[in-house]
Amino acid sequence: MTGRRDGDAAEVRRKIRSGAYDGQTAGLAPGHVQGNLIILPAEWANDFLRFCQANPKPCPLLAVSEAGDPRLPTLGADIDIRTDVPRYRVYRDGALVDRPTDIAALWRDDLVSFLIGCSFSFEEALLADGVPVKHIALGRNVPMYRTNIPCISAGRFSGPMVVSMRPLRPSDAIRAIQITTRFPTVHGAPVHFGDPEMIGIEDVTRPDYGEAVPIEDGEVPVFWACGVTPQAALLQARPPLAIGHEPGCMLVTDLLNSRLACL
Amino acid sequence: MTGRRDGDAAEVRRKIRSGAYDGQTAGLAPGHVQGNLIILPAEWANDFLRFCQANPKPCPLLAVSEAGDPRLPTLGADIDIRTDVPRYRVYRDGALVDRPTDIAALWRDDLVSFLIGCSFSFEEALLADGVPVKHIALGRNVPMYRTNIPCISAGRFSGPMVVSMRPLRPSDAIRAIQITTRFPTVHGAPVHFGDPEMIGIEDVTRPDYGEAVPIEDGEVPVFWACGVTPQAALLQARPPLAIGHEPGCMLVTDLLNSRLACL
Repeated sequence: MTGRRDGDAAEVRRKIRSGAYDGQTAGLAPGHVQGNLIILPAEWANDFLRFCQANPKPCPLLAVSEAGDPRLPTLGADIDIRTDVPRYRVYRDGALVDRPTDIAALWRDDLVSFLIGCSFSFEEALLADGVPVKHIALGRNVPMYRTNIPCISAGRFSGPMVVSMRPLRPSDAIRAIQITTRFPTVHGAPVHFGDPEMIGIEDVTRPDYGEAVPIEDGEVPVFWACGVTPQAALLQARPPLAIGHEPGCMLVTDLLNSRLACL
Repeated sequence: MTGRRDGDAAEVRRKIRSGAYDGQTAGLAPGHVQGNLIILPAEWANDFLRFCQANPKPCPLLAVSEAGDPRLPTLGADIDIRTDVPRYRVYRDGALVDRPTDIAALWRDDLVSFLIGCSFSFEEALLADGVPVKHIALGRNVPMYRTNIPCISAGRFSGPMVVSMRPLRPSDAIRAIQITTRFPTVHGAPVHFGDPEMIGIEDVTRPDYGEAVPIEDGEVPVFWACGVTPQAALLQARPPLAIGHEPGCMLVTDLLNSRLACL
């Protein structure tokens, strides 16, 4: 499967669904929105929905399914959430128990799927505008950190905001703030820049998730709310069953990244 | 004259025109655009117009008059630029020679007036949004600095960009970038934040114009292009005659600051 800009998100999903592809989705179906998946039993879903609603910067919801319905028709007519993600993670009581390539055998009529926006969408807009995205240039996963910024709690879900960090020169950071402001459903504008300690990050060279990226002279670290936030809140809440995606193995949708721009 | 929000810009101008007021205009006719005035002989005006066009961030043009016409009808039907600024500065060959309260005796049929946007307009938007503007809180003039950022030259006009500085906490700086981006005709988004040396400012505690403002722990200096830039380029070019305004004694227009927002 190539990274060429053919936009064939449905074809990507077909290959994943058939078992012909089970790897990372970065670079596939360029221009198309990819999202973070979380699946929960209905009994837990309402609290999680309220958690996302109360914390839209780290938890921007692109779609929520009907209970028991494996489709997400607003994201792609053919989507079957049981098969269309390359690799899943299955958690029981907050512990990772399996990493299957489909979850057909686990499906139940009370499961609700949440698709949460991802920084891939705004990174495409940054690169298109000439703003360098260093972790992509280095072929690394973005560095992510737990902060001391509390999320608003909802029922059993609570926890700190997790942020991703991109080092930028100040003029690029200003442009990046302008660009990402246009994308509120994929985390929007940064939440902080500069001194990491101001948001409770003690050592920026040691991310809690992802990989470290060096901050060169003349660059400042710029921090965006991150979709790992709801995953962390979820694991802390320890629902009896939760299903997510293997990091980097996202749901590829028919939505265009450009259509997420609010203006 | 009070600072109450009555919006009577024409009444402010009438008092100035009659000689009843010759002071600072900050706080007068709140909500209304105030602008920087530059008047030049037509022989110099075309180069200056090109300089402004090429450097829109420091030199955002709100209006340019016909040669010899003292009116600026798009800014206020009754405006007479010979009398409606509280106090003028008259320069000959780049040297300040007079500070009159009207310039009727100096008027010539080849003079062209330029009105350039001013940060008063975006500061009003920042304050309305709850972003603190420290020099206003301290009752000081904003600190301004010559930088090593070159303007694009046009004929006899050239020189470095002058910037104004406001210290902000990073979260307020992000919001200020969003707000000022909406106001491209009054300098728009910042040009830099953080390390002053990156733009050639050696000592941020010693501004080249205006007054110093302290940068507290947890704040970063944020730098906007400043309307002093064209004034500095003008004085360096040494035209035989140039007329500006006494610092802080601006032309008060009928335009609403809110109408300068591009969205």
